[in-house]
Amino acid sequence: MSDEKFMKLALRLARKGEGLTNPNPMVGAVLVKDNKIIGTGWHKRFGDKHAEVNAIEDAKRKGYTIEGATLYVTLEPCSHWGKQPPCADRIIEEGISRVVIAMVDPNPLVSGRGIKKLKEAGVEVKVGVLEEEAKKLNEIFVKYITTKIPFVSIKLALTLDGFIATQNFKSKWITDEKARGEVQKLRRRHMAIMVGANTIIQDNPRLDCRIKGCTEKFKVILDSQGKVADFIKKGHKLRVFENGKVIVFTKRPEKFKGICEAYPITEPFEILKKLGEIGIDSVLIEGGRIAGEFLNFADKLYLFYGPKIFGRGIKPFEILKVRDINEAPKFHIEGIKRVGKSFLVTAYPGDRNV
Amino acid sequence: MSDEKFMKLALRLARKGEGLTNPNPMVGAVLVKDNKIIGTGWHKRFGDKHAEVNAIEDAKRKGYTIEGATLYVTLEPCSHWGKQPPCADRIIEEGISRVVIAMVDPNPLVSGRGIKKLKEAGVEVKVGVLEEEAKKLNEIFVKYITTKIPFVSIKLALTLDGFIATQNFKSKWITDEKARGEVQKLRRRHMAIMVGANTIIQDNPRLDCRIKGCTEKFKVILDSQGKVADFIKKGHKLRVFENGKVIVFTKRPEKFKGICEAYPITEPFEILKKLGEIGIDSVLIEGGRIAGEFLNFADKLYLFYGPKIFGRGIKPFEILKVRDINEAPKFHIEGIKRVGKSFLVTAYPGDRNV
Repeated sequence: MSDEKFMKLALRLARKGEGLTNPNPMVGAVLVKDNKIIGTGWHKRFGDKHAEVNAIEDAKRKGYTIEGATLYVTLEPCSHWGKQPPCADRIIEEGISRVVIAMVDPNPLVSGRGIKKLKEAGVEVKVGVLEEEAKKLNEIFVKYITTKIPFVSIKLALTLDGFIATQNFKSKWITDEKARGEVQKLRRRHMAIMVGANTIIQDNPRLDCRIKGCTEKFKVILDSQGKVADFIKKGHKLRVFENGKVIVFTKRPEKFKGICEAYPITEPFEILKKLGEIGIDSVLIEGGRIAGEFLNFADKLYLFYGPKIFGRGIKPFEILKVRDINEAPKFHIEGIKRVGKSFLVTAYPGDRNV
Repeated sequence: MSDEKFMKLALRLARKGEGLTNPNPMVGAVLVKDNKIIGTGWHKRFGDKHAEVNAIEDAKRKGYTIEGATLYVTLEPCSHWGKQPPCADRIIEEGISRVVIAMVDPNPLVSGRGIKKLKEAGVEVKVGVLEEEAKKLNEIFVKYITTKIPFVSIKLALTLDGFIATQNFKSKWITDEKARGEVQKLRRRHMAIMVGANTIIQDNPRLDCRIKGCTEKFKVILDSQGKVADFIKKGHKLRVFENGKVIVFTKRPEKFKGICEAYPITEPFEILKKLGEIGIDSVLIEGGRIAGEFLNFADKLYLFYGPKIFGRGIKPFEILKVRDINEAPKFHIEGIKRVGKSFLVTAYPGDRNV
């Protein structure tokens, strides 16, 4: 029971790294001695010190002796040299006597090695405390580390009757400002934001995350015909190029010479594979009309419903051809919450018992 | 503060009459003496004793003296003879010294008269405790008594992308059994259930409420061509005729001679007016394809979203022609809740600040 209490805190600390640690996981750690918290830490930014080390240093700064303490950590401590020395060695060195771990490292190449090393050094190890929560927290990391394909989220703003725009392609504003604030939080979670060329030309979006301290985003544009390049050559300025890095997938990569990186790829799965190769662990698809092409590869849907009815208009998934009701892609609802006058539904693909 | 506490109980009691008192309101009453509840009552069924009288009789049965008590009642006590003697007189007779009322009678013909009568007899009266809750509880009654037009609810089962059926008109099952259980509760609230002829012929629904103790429903069928009559004449049995009363609106009323009541009306507002004349205070529109015609007259939407995506299919409000986004009908979300694997959104027409 108190193991869960401390792990809950560790998970809360881990979340502070959201959007800052990618493609590494968010990790939180809590050091406890005699049922008292003596140090806390989390992985703050990609490349920075690990959560375990931050918790140890926090405890030392406060004058505590670490020997004999229990460490709560949301992910199995690493046993190999990466950008940082292996945490398992440090834990042993410091004389920590018990380690409680929420989940093992999902990376099949190293999974279990940190635990093994700790056990061999005589450290008591308990695994699986709040495991589900930990896996969910790092759903992006888990997907990417095990498949090398980015975690794919689709975000749409729909009317109550499921339209993303009127028949004349107007979509401002189906949802309100609060929903747009929530979209900023979604952008923070993802390394890349993806839209179609029409969105870039019509809306001239920045596609960045305006939350303070947020990392720069990869901005991915699907532009099979190279329309964006044509548009720029006519002298138009596009805000998407103001910061971060733009990547285009197109049949006409030559058009983008001197403008940005462009790959001659147009198949959805091949695009995702390439993004994975580049090191991108997560992509938020914001363009309504490209959402349909990626629905089969989606790991999560973020559906904002604005309190309007259009009757007719543009449907997001028209590309699907569901003839029989049993062929229809199924989802399970993770959560529903109000966001201003709208509401947000988050769903995962696949059926699941409630 | 304690006025609110007792009124909350009165409101809870009132709700026990849901679906049983129509077209009369639900009313609850609590008698309190020396801060102690001595009697409770509610209006149980249309034509039965009023809540106030039930609370008085409950207190007497328990051996309490009513003189000097405070009565909490969710609606202004009546001052006129209806199916029951006027409650205001009874309250005065019993020597109740204080009456706390949630809302005045919305009926413009009698509104305020019960309060006046009580005050003139020297009873202390307080009005407006939990007024909003009381008005919402009796939203059906308030609409009907003030307009003589039934309260119009539209219930739809939609996919996440807003379809009510696949392109080949299959709609079983977008939502699951728990959602269908919730629909039974909606039917209980309404005096009439309305669908189109195609629903009757394709699905052969009962359109009744299978919750124990529920009243029989008026079943309203929109059948401009008289298809249902043709179908019956071919020897088909339809479950909708098994109980309750069927009312048809059609261009061909002569086809329904010997089958059921039929009116030569096809305009949506005229249909609602006729239902009001018949004494029906509320209608639940369940047919997806007729929903569009009645959207302008809807008082409330009950939207069940099943966790599926169709991409293409039948849209409920196609009849609307929203050209500009600013013309789109707006709603405000009352509530969102999970129902099994689906979720239910309730919304009222019109904008409202959150």
